[in-house]
Amino acid sequence: MGPGPSDVHPRILSAMARSTIGHLDPAFIGMMEEVKEMLKYAFKTENELTMPISAPGSAGMEACFANLVEPGDKVIVCINGVFGGRMKENVHRLGGEAVVVEDDWGSAVSIDKVERALIDNPDAKIVAFVHAETSTGAISDAKALCQIANQYGCINIVDAVTSLAGSELRVDDWGIDAIYSGSQKCLSAMPGLSPVSFSDRAIEKLTSRKTPVTSWFLDLNLVMGYWGKGAKRAYHHTAPVNTLYGLHESLVMLREEGVENSWNRHQQNHILLRYGLNNLGIDYLVDEADRLPQLNSVLIPQDQDDLEVRSSLMKNFNIDIGAGLGPLEGKIWRIGLMGYTSRKDNIELLLSALKNTL
Amino acid sequence: MGPGPSDVHPRILSAMARSTIGHLDPAFIGMMEEVKEMLKYAFKTENELTMPISAPGSAGMEACFANLVEPGDKVIVCINGVFGGRMKENVHRLGGEAVVVEDDWGSAVSIDKVERALIDNPDAKIVAFVHAETSTGAISDAKALCQIANQYGCINIVDAVTSLAGSELRVDDWGIDAIYSGSQKCLSAMPGLSPVSFSDRAIEKLTSRKTPVTSWFLDLNLVMGYWGKGAKRAYHHTAPVNTLYGLHESLVMLREEGVENSWNRHQQNHILLRYGLNNLGIDYLVDEADRLPQLNSVLIPQDQDDLEVRSSLMKNFNIDIGAGLGPLEGKIWRIGLMGYTSRKDNIELLLSALKNTL
Repeated sequence: MGPGPSDVHPRILSAMARSTIGHLDPAFIGMMEEVKEMLKYAFKTENELTMPISAPGSAGMEACFANLVEPGDKVIVCINGVFGGRMKENVHRLGGEAVVVEDDWGSAVSIDKVERALIDNPDAKIVAFVHAETSTGAISDAKALCQIANQYGCINIVDAVTSLAGSELRVDDWGIDAIYSGSQKCLSAMPGLSPVSFSDRAIEKLTSRKTPVTSWFLDLNLVMGYWGKGAKRAYHHTAPVNTLYGLHESLVMLREEGVENSWNRHQQNHILLRYGLNNLGIDYLVDEADRLPQLNSVLIPQDQDDLEVRSSLMKNFNIDIGAGLGPLEGKIWRIGLMGYTSRKDNIELLLSALKNTL
Repeated sequence: MGPGPSDVHPRILSAMARSTIGHLDPAFIGMMEEVKEMLKYAFKTENELTMPISAPGSAGMEACFANLVEPGDKVIVCINGVFGGRMKENVHRLGGEAVVVEDDWGSAVSIDKVERALIDNPDAKIVAFVHAETSTGAISDAKALCQIANQYGCINIVDAVTSLAGSELRVDDWGIDAIYSGSQKCLSAMPGLSPVSFSDRAIEKLTSRKTPVTSWFLDLNLVMGYWGKGAKRAYHHTAPVNTLYGLHESLVMLREEGVENSWNRHQQNHILLRYGLNNLGIDYLVDEADRLPQLNSVLIPQDQDDLEVRSSLMKNFNIDIGAGLGPLEGKIWRIGLMGYTSRKDNIELLLSALKNTL
């Protein structure tokens, strides 16, 4: 019940143990097509370039930045937690110029500040922000942020590692250009894959680059040749076959539940947890309007020792909850209700364990 | 029985299906330490910086080049197949200058040509070559190549994707500085991880860089903080927990067999296959002295249709053998005897299937 990886459903674990077949085997290629189609469903997009990157979410972030940012490009980076900071780091390493819009850790990204940055920097090409900040538990208004970026002629890059399948997310309706997520959060598959999706505008920027993408492994011009349609696929790298079995099964399960139902389940269970935590006198870090249902960041009661409580939950109840990161270390706990972990029995167990421990 | 992924042992598949735990869980961290120790055993090294990169072998290659090559660095790149060509591509993208030493596809890298290149380029900093070319089935003399690189003041980068655990490989004795491999070849784990190891000389070069590593995900200065010793690990990315369960199990099995015994098994089974292929009138592409036991590249008999034979083997016998790549497309088949696939019963099945098919 930490910030991820979330619990993996037994069906998905079983899928992982299927025999490894060749990454160019027709049966595997058929499965790849299904994975792409189901990811489009999860992202609510018709983007042809929708697929999993063969590495964790951090590599998905890098795939977006490495392909879209060219040396000298000005990028407006919104920072309200750890992962916005990592975006800035990506921009710098790629030779881009980051214009930082800062908000408090635990707040949503301010639309007004972003608009001010866009007015002040008419030469900006990209706006990048985190939809659901796993480090703080705050959700930002992705629709409004993409709209404003678009209005000022920028493309956008959106981190949806923790939001995909857990919170409302509509890639096409909201005009998202480049988005990355992770397999191990609300999809409840195992870590190691990063689903991404790119709009036509994003593809136009990446195919009209003047400089080659520094990373061979993440160059989408090459990756597309492998994941693309058609009988003849260009060999690029050896896909993580078994991990893809797991992602495939998790997406089948998401279709069975329905993605909107999955969003609702995360919200309903969040309300249940909040009610119980309030009864224990535990408060949230984030304002009610900006709270992420799948990642509940709560203030550690003043009379409690952070590490002691977390160790005791682990030792006595086999429950793992997350620590705070950076400036929030020792100040908050991060309780994840993601994917298969988002269940009533888990909430009851945690509340009872907390009551016994505090 | 293609060029990989190889068959995965049922023990390893079962390990993959264990419950996913947190990547910062003490039990997981204990397992990481074991993986590191067993990789040192497999590589025959005492290098502290020995660990798996959380992505396929291509990302392992990129980790070596992205960390060790700075813009302007001259790198001698030996090309005798697909993967040498990919090394050159890496050097270019990173702003380095590649001096190419070319040998025929199917030949070993020529030590004389490398020495000539070192004499002609006294400002070269790195020599990079592929120990076992999976695209051609040729093995090169890694010991001699590292020695000559060292003699001229260069560090070396060695591709051991297909050689690790299949052919003699001694990182410390041979003076290898940076090496990467894959989980899905002679270790017979599932694809998705790339074991790497770096000598003190390599670490010195990467820690004294003047420019930051372009890739955040592959920056070893950061990755080391996560995989390093000590109670407090810096969170870097979410490790592919289940895939690491599989790698761990495959390394336990390698220790049980003994790495030298594993080299011998690959060689003995190669001899057995060669004998049977010769009886069918099938010849090898590579000279006997340079043949890779785990990847047998054989000339397609002139009266046979490449695709027809491979499809028939797949359809009638459930056997997958590899096609030729690049200039060898349509000219060779690549028969893999890697890891768990390297067994007498597989060889007998393939020989009997070929006899029926040709």
